[in-house]
Amino acid sequence: MDRAIVVAAAQMGPIARSATRKDVVLRLLAALRQAHARGAELVVFPELTLTTFFPRWHLTDPAEIDAFFETEMPGPETLPLFEEARRLGVGFYLGYAELAAEEGRTRRFNTSILVDRAGRVVGKYRKVHLPGYDAPQAGRSSQHLEKYYFEPGNLGFPVWRSMGAVMGMCICNDRRWAETYRVMALQGAEMILLGYNTPDDHTGNFDSDSLTGFHHQLSVQAGAYQNSTWVVATAKAGNEEGSRMIGQSMIVAPSGQIVAMATTTDDEVITARCDLDMAALYRRTIFDFARHREPDNYRLIVERKGPVAPPQEP
Amino acid sequence: MDRAIVVAAAQMGPIARSATRKDVVLRLLAALRQAHARGAELVVFPELTLTTFFPRWHLTDPAEIDAFFETEMPGPETLPLFEEARRLGVGFYLGYAELAAEEGRTRRFNTSILVDRAGRVVGKYRKVHLPGYDAPQAGRSSQHLEKYYFEPGNLGFPVWRSMGAVMGMCICNDRRWAETYRVMALQGAEMILLGYNTPDDHTGNFDSDSLTGFHHQLSVQAGAYQNSTWVVATAKAGNEEGSRMIGQSMIVAPSGQIVAMATTTDDEVITARCDLDMAALYRRTIFDFARHREPDNYRLIVERKGPVAPPQEP
Repeated sequence: MDRAIVVAAAQMGPIARSATRKDVVLRLLAALRQAHARGAELVVFPELTLTTFFPRWHLTDPAEIDAFFETEMPGPETLPLFEEARRLGVGFYLGYAELAAEEGRTRRFNTSILVDRAGRVVGKYRKVHLPGYDAPQAGRSSQHLEKYYFEPGNLGFPVWRSMGAVMGMCICNDRRWAETYRVMALQGAEMILLGYNTPDDHTGNFDSDSLTGFHHQLSVQAGAYQNSTWVVATAKAGNEEGSRMIGQSMIVAPSGQIVAMATTTDDEVITARCDLDMAALYRRTIFDFARHREPDNYRLIVERKGPVAPPQEP
Repeated sequence: MDRAIVVAAAQMGPIARSATRKDVVLRLLAALRQAHARGAELVVFPELTLTTFFPRWHLTDPAEIDAFFETEMPGPETLPLFEEARRLGVGFYLGYAELAAEEGRTRRFNTSILVDRAGRVVGKYRKVHLPGYDAPQAGRSSQHLEKYYFEPGNLGFPVWRSMGAVMGMCICNDRRWAETYRVMALQGAEMILLGYNTPDDHTGNFDSDSLTGFHHQLSVQAGAYQNSTWVVATAKAGNEEGSRMIGQSMIVAPSGQIVAMATTTDDEVITARCDLDMAALYRRTIFDFARHREPDNYRLIVERKGPVAPPQEP
């Protein structure tokens, strides 16, 4: 039985602050149709796809903030994407800012959904690893305020059996944390879908910031290889409101090899045929978890959040 | 205060089955002196440095097996290495097969020790992630029988404050498992020392085996970057008794960058000056564990050894 799936990463170029949802959805529809024409059965859109990456600003007006969030999915403006995807028989991953009424209060999450080929929302993930700060930092041209706008995801790292594969999702900074992939791999994840917005001024130190693309590739390739899983990673990219965000959307095989990569920082569709059975070789040899993992030695990973170094030498 | 340390990876070319401990120690002494002459204060030797990589054979004669193991460290044949290192004021990491009398029985481990500049053994590590099999596999030209010869290490992943740094150790296959680095980073590890023997026929599938060097580099670079630590990785390399083992010994910075790399598969010393404070930038930004890790979401990593996939779709 053939267990291959043709996947597309639909990278988006910059989205201006003035862009409407309708403007953005038109671009998503164009990418969706291009991906379908190239045989894709599943399209991965970026993190916070529907607006500019607003965590770069410190906004305080509640109405202004709320305008970046979705209260329903699909809503009237995003429904055309769902309808067209259903019509074409294409599943998709979409990242957006979610405003939820839960536990008697308003909650805000950096969220992605998995939509199957029949247009049904089959999975929701809320970003666990929020980078940056919860208050503005002096001296930065762009802020990084995800901890101000969002609370950490409360859904863990679930997986779903959909479109013939065990699918997992994560978002942006999650990809730098080895735990992200491992928790999904321990649930049998065969393909991890990932959207991101990655500016090239994370630390403010050029020695490090100039490695932004390398660090992106390194983390995703290692996550794929060490967990015998496909990863489809899609950027929102380019110069967006003065912030420069890397592209380098890519599809990575369970071997860690990059099998497709975007070469622009604009709207660009890349595709690959992903053989889900390619992982089997790794899973029965080097990464046969059931034979080789030694969880008794891993306890600090859950028992400790920050590092505790041994005492200084006397 | 300067917190740099000059480190050497002392790669060893093949060691024949007929080589004596004395033969090997002479090669180690030559490498030690070369490293010292190039300013090194710490030298990392390979895994199972003192003999050929015997787990490639299925030996059954106890005396023949025991001949590959050390019952004391230093012993009469290794003492000259300790004495010369002390004389030069150079610390070292040495991997060897350890035969221990513990819990009223004979136990065998794949072990490394950390020796400080005064020649004192300050740390011992026993390999946790044993690859391969506990019985011979049909159809392989080289076996991979670490699970037959050794039991998994029973010392966890400790770290030691020595030579001005928080040092950790691991061995070979440990480097492919993200948990290895993370457990040491959660104890403040600033430098991880690693010896390996990596044949290029791990899986028997050329698609994968031809990526052996890439997988080595990917795993070590990701481990260094994602844990803001230096890694010094040293091979036993070359065509050893018909088995081809990769070289690519390397020193990797907390940025994930390779700052020194061996270009042969023979005896070769590489060095780098490692600024331990380079990690500080990463630890207070992207990898500030205390702010960014979310251990409640990681529980499966310790609760589950092998993967459990969701049920099949109906």
